Amino acid sequence: MINDLFLRACKREATERTPVWMMRQAGRYLPEYRAIRAKVDFLTLCKTPELASEVSIQPVDIIGVDACIIFSDILVVPEAMGMKLFIEEDKGGPRFEDPIRSRSDIDRLKVPDPNHELKYVMDAVRLTKKKLDGRVPLIGFAGSPWTLAAYLVEGKGSKNFRAIKELIYSNPKDAHVLLDKLARTVAAYLNAKIEAGVQAVQIFDTWGGILPPDEFREFSLRYIAQVLKLLRRNGAPAIVFCKDCAHSLEAIADTGCDVVGLDWSIDIGKARMMIGSYTALQGNLDPTVLYASPEHIREEVKKILEKFGKGPGHIFNLGHGILPDTPVENVKAFVQAVKEESVKYHR
Amino acid sequence: MINDLFLRACKREATERTPVWMMRQAGRYLPEYRAIRAKVDFLTLCKTPELASEVSIQPVDIIGVDACIIFSDILVVPEAMGMKLFIEEDKGGPRFEDPIRSRSDIDRLKVPDPNHELKYVMDAVRLTKKKLDGRVPLIGFAGSPWTLAAYLVEGKGSKNFRAIKELIYSNPKDAHVLLDKLARTVAAYLNAKIEAGVQAVQIFDTWGGILPPDEFREFSLRYIAQVLKLLRRNGAPAIVFCKDCAHSLEAIADTGCDVVGLDWSIDIGKARMMIGSYTALQGNLDPTVLYASPEHIREEVKKILEKFGKGPGHIFNLGHGILPDTPVENVKAFVQAVKEESVKYHR
Repeated sequence: MINDLFLRACKREATERTPVWMMRQAGRYLPEYRAIRAKVDFLTLCKTPELASEVSIQPVDIIGVDACIIFSDILVVPEAMGMKLFIEEDKGGPRFEDPIRSRSDIDRLKVPDPNHELKYVMDAVRLTKKKLDGRVPLIGFAGSPWTLAAYLVEGKGSKNFRAIKELIYSNPKDAHVLLDKLARTVAAYLNAKIEAGVQAVQIFDTWGGILPPDEFREFSLRYIAQVLKLLRRNGAPAIVFCKDCAHSLEAIADTGCDVVGLDWSIDIGKARMMIGSYTALQGNLDPTVLYASPEHIREEVKKILEKFGKGPGHIFNLGHGILPDTPVENVKAFVQAVKEESVKYHR
Repeated sequence: MINDLFLRACKREATERTPVWMMRQAGRYLPEYRAIRAKVDFLTLCKTPELASEVSIQPVDIIGVDACIIFSDILVVPEAMGMKLFIEEDKGGPRFEDPIRSRSDIDRLKVPDPNHELKYVMDAVRLTKKKLDGRVPLIGFAGSPWTLAAYLVEGKGSKNFRAIKELIYSNPKDAHVLLDKLARTVAAYLNAKIEAGVQAVQIFDTWGGILPPDEFREFSLRYIAQVLKLLRRNGAPAIVFCKDCAHSLEAIADTGCDVVGLDWSIDIGKARMMIGSYTALQGNLDPTVLYASPEHIREEVKKILEKFGKGPGHIFNLGHGILPDTPVENVKAFVQAVKEESVKYHR
């Protein structure tokens, strides 16, 4: 039997219950993932299709989620554009050795052929699709142009994002050149993933929220819309997740995506009133709720289901990635609670 | 001549122009501040009234802001409750040696007499008030109960706030005991400051935004409202600034504050439509705009003035504290731009 609850919910079609998956579900909270990471470093894992597909499928087998997301990292895309990437997972995250600081740096970035420079991702997609054998749909993802630009210019995660903000405030023209290049790269990358077999795509705008609303629309959302326009979706729904951007919910829905991902800063009932008549919603449990007891987790799940209310168009998820030290038993309890408690909203 | 623009704007009374000050205006971006800090550590500076008053007044003299905020740190309050505080400004910020982790830890916290344990703050207020000699109003501040609780329980700044969130999700009863104790402490502290001479108070809820909206109201806003209720304001307006909490703007205004502080994630025009008929608004330029050129800074100032529109009730400020590496010339250009460009909105 094929579980296509996730895809039906993305299209706001009727389902028997609310589907559930988790951002970063293939990750360190799983002992089975840590066992593999003990043997290879993070980037090797990303670049070895056999291993990437294995960790992608782990949460499907172990946790019982309704969708599989291909294991990778948003920064393999800038790496394929010519940036030198270092990922030291335990030492403050990924970084680039030579951040983008000038127009000539921007011009040097190439728009890669995803079937060449990122072939290992497409191989992982094909292999995972085969191993899944239709059990659940497969999702591919990419960072938004803005979020990638922030990484490229800062060189790493940042508290104040001085460099990227200086670029947009002092030199918006160059910023637009960079973002356009990234948008075309991301679109080609996602198109290749769709061709390789992913059945849905998600764009992560992790750092949209560092911008004021006007700048968010000009420097982030505009390029997400460009990516969506360049997609040959072939029926694959597109999910847009912008962290800390609840100020622009309608504008996000207007990009032409099928699903808007919500962080936990917005009431999902309010969001449904605003945009739920034309997009599906994904979210939005605070990931730290998973530190509480299974009983409390169930109560919080019920609250979110009740806020969304009856009818289709909700994909349950966390409001951000699952945290590495989350107890596995709680994760299972969370997924089970969604599966059980959501049935009555779909009668 | 006495400049009371700030106080009149807080009360939404007519002014000739929009007043302006900056959160963290007494700080490292000023060479004159750094010269003093080269001689004493951060906590000594907080605890030496002569020096604290000197750095408090620096931005009034050097930058020309319309209000003076007494130099201090929100964490001197928990220190007075019995916590051992370390502030290493360059090494990841302040921390407590023994974070609050149990009910007995909570019970051990004392509600201090602010005129005793925090007498140095009151001395700094009296001295600063005297030195200011009415040039501009003096503001006193405190951390919100929730933000202080987060520091107490985490022991320091945090990325995921696991410990404090585990407390509220798993043991809300103890969390409420802690927050109530903090609310009474903060109220007594602000009351003592008002008695000592501050003419306005601001409550900083730096970490309200880590909570989903329902939890924000239950664990943060409720205790801000309690503080406000316990204040003997004696005519001093109260400003409430909750970072990343635009989801609850009306609820913040409903606490009974006079002014709602806005971060840069919300359009100030929208905020005025929502709550501007009964509270004044303070904000909300993205602090990183001050890295751009004076011309660009002026353009961004004009945009915010235009969004707020005509009439009283706006105190110009940044959407968060000024960043330590901001060029002083740009800060001066910012304040000058507000002073010049705002006149036409007050005719």
